[in-house]
Amino acid sequence: MQFHIPYYSYLAQCSSKRLALYQAIRDCITSQVLVMETKLPSSRELAALYGLSRGTVSEVYAMLASEGYITSGVGRGTFVSFQSPKQKGNEFPRQELHLLSDWGVRLKELQEQQTEPSEKIKVQIGGGQRAVNFQEFGPGIQAFPDKEWNRCLYAQARLLTNGERRSRMGSTLGDEALRDSIAQYLRRARGIAAKASQIVIFNGSKQALALAAHLFINPGDHVVVESPGYRGVIDVFRAQGGRCIHAPIDGQGIIPDKWKAKLLFVTPNRQFPTGAVLNMERRQQLLAWASENNALILEDDYDSVFRHRGKSLEPLKVLDSEGRVIYIGSFSNTLLPHIRIGYAVLPSSLVEVFASAKAAFEPSPSNLLEQRTLASWMNNGQYERHLRRMKRIYGRKFKLLRELLTAKLSSWFQWVEGDAGLSIFGWWNGTADQYVQFRSNCLAAGIMWSETCIEEQADGNGIRYGAYFYFPRLSEEEIVYGVNRMQAIGLD
Amino acid sequence: MQFHIPYYSYLAQCSSKRLALYQAIRDCITSQVLVMETKLPSSRELAALYGLSRGTVSEVYAMLASEGYITSGVGRGTFVSFQSPKQKGNEFPRQELHLLSDWGVRLKELQEQQTEPSEKIKVQIGGGQRAVNFQEFGPGIQAFPDKEWNRCLYAQARLLTNGERRSRMGSTLGDEALRDSIAQYLRRARGIAAKASQIVIFNGSKQALALAAHLFINPGDHVVVESPGYRGVIDVFRAQGGRCIHAPIDGQGIIPDKWKAKLLFVTPNRQFPTGAVLNMERRQQLLAWASENNALILEDDYDSVFRHRGKSLEPLKVLDSEGRVIYIGSFSNTLLPHIRIGYAVLPSSLVEVFASAKAAFEPSPSNLLEQRTLASWMNNGQYERHLRRMKRIYGRKFKLLRELLTAKLSSWFQWVEGDAGLSIFGWWNGTADQYVQFRSNCLAAGIMWSETCIEEQADGNGIRYGAYFYFPRLSEEEIVYGVNRMQAIGLD
Repeated sequence: MQFHIPYYSYLAQCSSKRLALYQAIRDCITSQVLVMETKLPSSRELAALYGLSRGTVSEVYAMLASEGYITSGVGRGTFVSFQSPKQKGNEFPRQELHLLSDWGVRLKELQEQQTEPSEKIKVQIGGGQRAVNFQEFGPGIQAFPDKEWNRCLYAQARLLTNGERRSRMGSTLGDEALRDSIAQYLRRARGIAAKASQIVIFNGSKQALALAAHLFINPGDHVVVESPGYRGVIDVFRAQGGRCIHAPIDGQGIIPDKWKAKLLFVTPNRQFPTGAVLNMERRQQLLAWASENNALILEDDYDSVFRHRGKSLEPLKVLDSEGRVIYIGSFSNTLLPHIRIGYAVLPSSLVEVFASAKAAFEPSPSNLLEQRTLASWMNNGQYERHLRRMKRIYGRKFKLLRELLTAKLSSWFQWVEGDAGLSIFGWWNGTADQYVQFRSNCLAAGIMWSETCIEEQADGNGIRYGAYFYFPRLSEEEIVYGVNRMQAIGLD
Repeated sequence: MQFHIPYYSYLAQCSSKRLALYQAIRDCITSQVLVMETKLPSSRELAALYGLSRGTVSEVYAMLASEGYITSGVGRGTFVSFQSPKQKGNEFPRQELHLLSDWGVRLKELQEQQTEPSEKIKVQIGGGQRAVNFQEFGPGIQAFPDKEWNRCLYAQARLLTNGERRSRMGSTLGDEALRDSIAQYLRRARGIAAKASQIVIFNGSKQALALAAHLFINPGDHVVVESPGYRGVIDVFRAQGGRCIHAPIDGQGIIPDKWKAKLLFVTPNRQFPTGAVLNMERRQQLLAWASENNALILEDDYDSVFRHRGKSLEPLKVLDSEGRVIYIGSFSNTLLPHIRIGYAVLPSSLVEVFASAKAAFEPSPSNLLEQRTLASWMNNGQYERHLRRMKRIYGRKFKLLRELLTAKLSSWFQWVEGDAGLSIFGWWNGTADQYVQFRSNCLAAGIMWSETCIEEQADGNGIRYGAYFYFPRLSEEEIVYGVNRMQAIGLD
């Protein structure tokens, strides 16, 4: 039995072993280290543990029992029977926060700024009404072939635990079979001439982005980001001390400019959050900018797997002849919410340093089992079959939501043309006050969505709100109900 | 079918759609983006994909087939049939490395310094001889109850994928049930008054240490580490820009001093790598030092679960009344090599900022399935049953190796007294040259171990080598064979 009490600390202060043991146990009980119902070792075990005679332990147990701290029953064992009047406060002073590094201080300040207003409002909707949450991002779970996936997972679990002598920790770079499968997939489905040796697996795309931020941003360095853009990564750049240049976007995505910066973060294949697709001319301009400024581009292809209609453009990485683009992909939208697997296609010269950066946090992958499951799933063609199936399901929901939003809410929102992805974005047409009113009315009725806002004029006067609506987790019926409710609620 | 070729790039430069399609496919084939045997979409699919007429696609396919790039068979589909004379070089310029941040540069330099000499020598042993690798750290796999663990894993996998609508991403802090189980375990087995709310789960202890380094170390800050000590974490501190003060250790662990530093990394319960246990007086001195200097202590309890004999001392965390100790634990020695689960017991004031730091890399856990499996395993008492069983097995191996090393190699090594853990440490008695000779002789015979070295004199003149021998993966027979071989090989 694993058991520990501060016996030796007490022994140093007490006149006898018996007293030290008694006080150590009693204080553990009164201070809630040993809580009600905890089983204590037998007197034989405890005696062996601390080199005491069994008689001493029995004596101490008898003392504690007589005072009501513990109870013993023959054949049952000895248990704590004392409930402290109140939980021990265990308050720590807050001086540790003064020890934070600059990184820690920036992180903390950013955390304190994070106020998603819609998250703070407690929704209480009346009888007969239903909540519809357009905020839930990530893949739809109901249609996931869980039995098929789990069969694959079980087989890989058996392989990983089959008692062989070989250590199975996996390379920092990620499971080799998975790197191979991803390279094949990218060549075939995205036209990227990726070799497995250039691919590093991460715990989701955010780990790749955060490590890139560490590897390339010094405090004071300029980084170009999209506006509106992906707040999660912008905060990571800021925590790193980066100065973000907020590049405006329009219906064609980011507007190229002569930025003075060493890094550009961009979502060309489906702009986050608007869904705009960057046109070919601008793609070429971004690459030319990177070349002229000796800069790197982080291309986050976070949500272009599901293309509902229209043409698909080359990722920047395909056009990248100088090795200036780091292409980042993810399975977050196609597998299960708890599975965090992302990857980067790196210029060969950067593979080693990314591996070192990852190894500083985890020398071997923390999700090897799921990496292997995915590799085997991709190899068997099961992954693409799943994609085809989800594409049909998402395509129907996309079309439905798009038609409904256009038909019912076009007076309030200007919808951005989009052909892919798992959400639909619209700019609010009215004033900021009207938006806040509309959002609050809808929230009270249980209808929620995600939002962003930008400063419309350079003088910072107008604020323009944008809203985006995720659909993968909602049923078609919920989509219809939700949009109809929004129309009915309005600005009253 | 997911398929992508750079059609639109070519269209911008070509006179006709037909030519653009032809060149796009041909160049993909010659540049190995589409490799031999890759299946192409049907002409109907490809036409739909790029808004072409089916006739155009058929014409292009016929052109490519006549030139030998592809072959088609009725009912079989169309495949790439061209093997490029040599793999495309795809060489990237190395200018990206000039873009590295200071952190990136330090990391890269540290990586380049890492030369484990014994890893570089290719072992080729003759017939009849056997390799014995005392370098393999981590848990013994053969005795792991894999069927029992996997049953638990399958049950948790079903719960996580059962198609419910709820998103199951888990908190950044880690699975709640696991945090609870660890708190209970620490109270009972280690005497730490931990509450689940103070516990954060990490991908192994190294993630906890690396995030602590980020949170508390600014470039130029002083950090106290043990010498010899854990190179992995020392490099993380250095990459962060920390200046390491190397505190000497003796048979009682780290020797307290009046360091000027804000952070101390220490392994009091089993010093890495020597195995020395810090005595109670020094523990109190370290806490007094932290208090006087307003410093934090990182207590890494990496390998004290298996105590083979003797008494167990209170972790520093137990004695820490001011909340200056961050206690870091791990399951790396008790589960399977590929499972990376560690944790920290934090002062309450630091929980939030650690969660933010972790979320910068992964907003939700990347190994939720295994976290839940472990929680359920601990709750069922299976974890501690497993520990008891492994303790017996490791105890036998520990005793055997200790007796053999003492009996056969005490003229060369001065063995450090140790009562716990999965390795045995000895200081080399001879000269550095003799050590190198001995190591190289043993390596040639396939006997390997891990090593460390320190500068013995302050003037940097003598180098003192230490060697440590892991035993959990070796059979008792291999242990006997290995030590006997070492004795026989000697310095010839």
